[in-house]
Amino acid sequence: MEKEKFSYPVSLRRMQITDKFWKNEMELVRTEVIPYQWNALNDKVEGAAPSYCMHNFKVAAEMNRQKRKQGAAYKEPSYTYRGFEMLPEDPENLKDEFYGYVFQDTDFSKWVEAVGYSLTQHPDPDLEKVADAAIDIVCAAQQEDGYLDTYYIINGKDGIFTNLRDHHELYCMGHLIEGAVAYYEATGKDKLLHAAERFADYATDYFGPEEGKCKGYPGHEIAEMALVRLYEVTGEQKYLDLSRFFIDERGTKPYYFDKEHPETVKKGHENELRYSYHQAHLPVRQQDEAFGHAVRAVYLYSGMADIARITKDEELYQACVRLWNNVTKKKMYITGGIGATHLGEAFSFPYDLPNDTAYAETCASIGLMFWARRMLEIVPDAKYADIMERALYNGVLSGMALDGKSFFYVNPLEVLPEACHKDERKFHVKPVRQKWFGCACCPPNLARLISSIGSYAFTENEDTLFVHLYMGSNVEKTVNGKTVNVQMESDMPWEGNIKIRVQAENAKMTLALRIPGWCKNYKISGIEDAAQEEKDGYLYLKKVWNREETFCIDFPMEVQMFAASERVREDIGKAAIMRGPVVYCLEEKDNGKNLHELLVDTDMHASVSEGKICDTVVKMVETDGWRLTESGDAEETLYHMYQKPQKQKVRLHYIPYYTWANRGENEMQVWTRVQNP
Amino acid sequence: MEKEKFSYPVSLRRMQITDKFWKNEMELVRTEVIPYQWNALNDKVEGAAPSYCMHNFKVAAEMNRQKRKQGAAYKEPSYTYRGFEMLPEDPENLKDEFYGYVFQDTDFSKWVEAVGYSLTQHPDPDLEKVADAAIDIVCAAQQEDGYLDTYYIINGKDGIFTNLRDHHELYCMGHLIEGAVAYYEATGKDKLLHAAERFADYATDYFGPEEGKCKGYPGHEIAEMALVRLYEVTGEQKYLDLSRFFIDERGTKPYYFDKEHPETVKKGHENELRYSYHQAHLPVRQQDEAFGHAVRAVYLYSGMADIARITKDEELYQACVRLWNNVTKKKMYITGGIGATHLGEAFSFPYDLPNDTAYAETCASIGLMFWARRMLEIVPDAKYADIMERALYNGVLSGMALDGKSFFYVNPLEVLPEACHKDERKFHVKPVRQKWFGCACCPPNLARLISSIGSYAFTENEDTLFVHLYMGSNVEKTVNGKTVNVQMESDMPWEGNIKIRVQAENAKMTLALRIPGWCKNYKISGIEDAAQEEKDGYLYLKKVWNREETFCIDFPMEVQMFAASERVREDIGKAAIMRGPVVYCLEEKDNGKNLHELLVDTDMHASVSEGKICDTVVKMVETDGWRLTESGDAEETLYHMYQKPQKQKVRLHYIPYYTWANRGENEMQVWTRVQNP
Repeated sequence: MEKEKFSYPVSLRRMQITDKFWKNEMELVRTEVIPYQWNALNDKVEGAAPSYCMHNFKVAAEMNRQKRKQGAAYKEPSYTYRGFEMLPEDPENLKDEFYGYVFQDTDFSKWVEAVGYSLTQHPDPDLEKVADAAIDIVCAAQQEDGYLDTYYIINGKDGIFTNLRDHHELYCMGHLIEGAVAYYEATGKDKLLHAAERFADYATDYFGPEEGKCKGYPGHEIAEMALVRLYEVTGEQKYLDLSRFFIDERGTKPYYFDKEHPETVKKGHENELRYSYHQAHLPVRQQDEAFGHAVRAVYLYSGMADIARITKDEELYQACVRLWNNVTKKKMYITGGIGATHLGEAFSFPYDLPNDTAYAETCASIGLMFWARRMLEIVPDAKYADIMERALYNGVLSGMALDGKSFFYVNPLEVLPEACHKDERKFHVKPVRQKWFGCACCPPNLARLISSIGSYAFTENEDTLFVHLYMGSNVEKTVNGKTVNVQMESDMPWEGNIKIRVQAENAKMTLALRIPGWCKNYKISGIEDAAQEEKDGYLYLKKVWNREETFCIDFPMEVQMFAASERVREDIGKAAIMRGPVVYCLEEKDNGKNLHELLVDTDMHASVSEGKICDTVVKMVETDGWRLTESGDAEETLYHMYQKPQKQKVRLHYIPYYTWANRGENEMQVWTRVQNP
Repeated sequence: MEKEKFSYPVSLRRMQITDKFWKNEMELVRTEVIPYQWNALNDKVEGAAPSYCMHNFKVAAEMNRQKRKQGAAYKEPSYTYRGFEMLPEDPENLKDEFYGYVFQDTDFSKWVEAVGYSLTQHPDPDLEKVADAAIDIVCAAQQEDGYLDTYYIINGKDGIFTNLRDHHELYCMGHLIEGAVAYYEATGKDKLLHAAERFADYATDYFGPEEGKCKGYPGHEIAEMALVRLYEVTGEQKYLDLSRFFIDERGTKPYYFDKEHPETVKKGHENELRYSYHQAHLPVRQQDEAFGHAVRAVYLYSGMADIARITKDEELYQACVRLWNNVTKKKMYITGGIGATHLGEAFSFPYDLPNDTAYAETCASIGLMFWARRMLEIVPDAKYADIMERALYNGVLSGMALDGKSFFYVNPLEVLPEACHKDERKFHVKPVRQKWFGCACCPPNLARLISSIGSYAFTENEDTLFVHLYMGSNVEKTVNGKTVNVQMESDMPWEGNIKIRVQAENAKMTLALRIPGWCKNYKISGIEDAAQEEKDGYLYLKKVWNREETFCIDFPMEVQMFAASERVREDIGKAAIMRGPVVYCLEEKDNGKNLHELLVDTDMHASVSEGKICDTVVKMVETDGWRLTESGDAEETLYHMYQKPQKQKVRLHYIPYYTWANRGENEMQVWTRVQNP
């Protein structure tokens, strides 16, 4: 790594996303997801299993009050929010039990994080009021010693940190920190931030390399990157130290989780395999293959990248690079989906990327974006941004319905609804998005990602503004005390022509524009007096900007046909269609049943047109193709003497992958067999 | 069904299999499998988990003796058998506990059945002595009331027939009957037969349509067909009635298993789904799709066919036909394997026939043969014999190593060893055969099938001898009081020319010779004065045979390329090679790694040659094909712009599917992509 090149995300308070595409996504989050989620975590959604999240905080707060024998009973404010009346809960009605998953607290933390980001892009005093009230409840549950996880507050604090492997306490802490920092950065309000600091202080007192401190680390990672964020906002070195400790302790022998769970210890290799689920089979610096639960893995790698950057740790950085190469060159779907098996929601072995049993969790692709952004912060190499963009427009956005009302955990690349209903091996694959989940990680993760999308698009350092993703936006940057305003117009992901207007007064600034990997020849026009240099997929425009300057950069989009490495058995002889960053797929709705009987012609004769999926305007793609003619006795003879298959010419109708399953249950496939392989 | 056409298997005591191929298989069973199995069920195999089968019988026998307060302690004879010394067990050393699976008794029953068949083909006084001693032990365990299942004898007879769904008592009874009848028919010794009758009497007293009797039926079928066999050997109507009762009661509402397990009852459709595992979701006469555990299913269908034939039950027969069509036209691998999913070892939905996750249990293919033979007994239609032959030479024989020393439960059509080791979804698929199994059903099932193979090859009725499978043999048939001797020479499955010699004295007999489905043009020569008629795939030769007549029938074998119905997603664009009844496959050993990168040319230019797999001589096939040339950056780029694949011409080396995995762990595939699909 070249240390002078580090960059960091542009503050969301210094940018506005004005883009039609992204404004729409953000409004869905603000008007659909965040309110729905609030009602969900207050158990107010009819027909949905209760979350008990806020209930648990209230119970903990009430226990707290009674223990301290001070203060009045917590009185919940009464308010209405987007039509849902939130009636105060009578403390008498609270059951003094913990309900839900051990990580139920994170429902709140993820929600408040999304709220924070959303407020930066769309002030909403009503929403802020609700969030403040929720924060009051959460903070009332915090223990005097700073501890704040309702599972152990309610069930007995003796158990604190006794089951790091399975009980997600440090995961809860991590999410609390992420939410608190986001809310603080958005609103300047520090009540929740202080609560998070106090919980983190509790953890720094408990864990660490010093004698007598616990040598454990999280079973589900996220604290690693959260603590770095807390360090960055507070400047407290101990948070950074704890993150690094967690990272370096993981996978060392004897295994901490063996000490914690001596009853489940197995011998040798088998034990290591169990720990690979938690990426704890080897010290992270020695790892070069991604194993185990994919979300946990990329959260860990994100934290590793943070620590590598801040502590300028070349060895740790090289581990990140090795793991990055392993994931993106051997274990990633073309959609940016990762985690090829639902068993352990995990990575499978290299090149094992089955399309119809994929796990490819939405959260894992989001985590891949977290990691990619952090790799970009260390080295601005477009290969990271290409993957970030690939995940975003495909495996991430596919997680949410176009109306923001239903969600996928699992993002397969091929679906036969009959199989999802009848074949237990595919029960994890849902042919239509679901309303909400008991384990609600993906919807809120989508909410926090989409609301903060600008911080993935732009990073900066002293003299350079990096544009990793193109979107309509208005970004402010300070160089040498001068403010530069960069406005961008874009119709991504549908068109590649970008209009950029820079307003400044004699400010010397480098604008680093990513050249997308999918673009063969870009064209820049209207820029004057700039030193232009192309490096690692970025075009560096270095100049003194003055007054208002407008120029254009055009990344022509073509319909492109992709093949997978021959090593990928499931995709051999098949091709996928992309246009720009968007992966396309075939749906039964447009192409009839039995999509596996279709062939795409290598001579595509592709045409692109605007069309609607539900009410959303997207670019559709048509290509030449073929449909096998079923032999008359297809139903009568299972095996017959081989004959050259009969087929008829058809036009194949492709839609963007992320828009699939918005028109009811039907077949879908990304990889289609190729005519003349 | 045309009732006058019914036939029944030729008695093994009236035939000798002289065939080189089958002699070899039978000798493996006699000299390897049967002795090994005997030692296994006596817990004398080092390194193998104990079966406890004979231990349980001894414990039950000792308890029996003590209860009756009569007789001397059971004294086990001392003997040696094939080098294994069997030391008598001191009754003092017996633990008075039941060990093993609830169906552990069947280890003995399957073994004694195989022994019985084997003795008809190869008298072996030592083996017979061991079997007689074992029978003494088993009979000593029988209760005064006739009950004979050591699980409940040892654990308490209060529980008898309280858990028909899961506890396999009637399955144990069924296997005991099968073993007893076989041993009686082979040796004329009726001690075990009487024990089986007494157990069956116990059951007929307990179950039945009469008021006050239990309305249950077996969770795991086999009693249905076993009771018919017992009826046929004893003439006792009540055994037939009980079988028919079990068949007709299954699937009626309210579900018997719900009464038995009220705690696990679910609502509506979900409950039916659970019962489909036991084929108990619907009355069998209403069933037209094969569901659930594949072995149980075909055992049931076999029993249904028996009852349909004996009771001339057209409705039941039509259910058999519908189910037969469903299985063989929608749910069967080209190898005759059935049961596409390991979850429940069950049938999947129509056309769902994944090659690399197949279950295709050896026992299920054996059960398919049981069923096919019974369908043939009703109607001599070659379509049944074709499937019987397909299963036999492929999905059945693949279950045993060429040296008879190791076995497959699961018979996949495609194997990547890495996946079997690393992908939990394929842990059920073993890349090499295993020594023995805790749940030892497949090896003994193979033993009993192979030892009795002649009863699948030949059936007869008053005036006709049906030849369903060709094999070197010497069969005696009586027509109108005259004995006809039919000798056959064959080199099946490698060559289709059959030489038949009939010796008789003015005996009018029809010889019905199956014309295999894989043969386009057969040629018969040397036959004189015979009325020849071809019907339903059989050539009927009707004549008065006199002295010695020899003629030949030739079924030329060609290398044939097969395709699956377009509905089978996993096989689309692929072809499999067969020659005669034998399915071929590619192994890494002969064709290099990454078999999925191979293509078979539709213009095969096939050549056939003799070759050895280990020490076994087989016919190998070579065809023209292609190997994709991996692009130089196969390891560097997971997805790349589509380019016409580069490939080089190769010869593909095919071996018989059933001989795969005899030369160590390696890749294998049956279905290969076709050049120019």
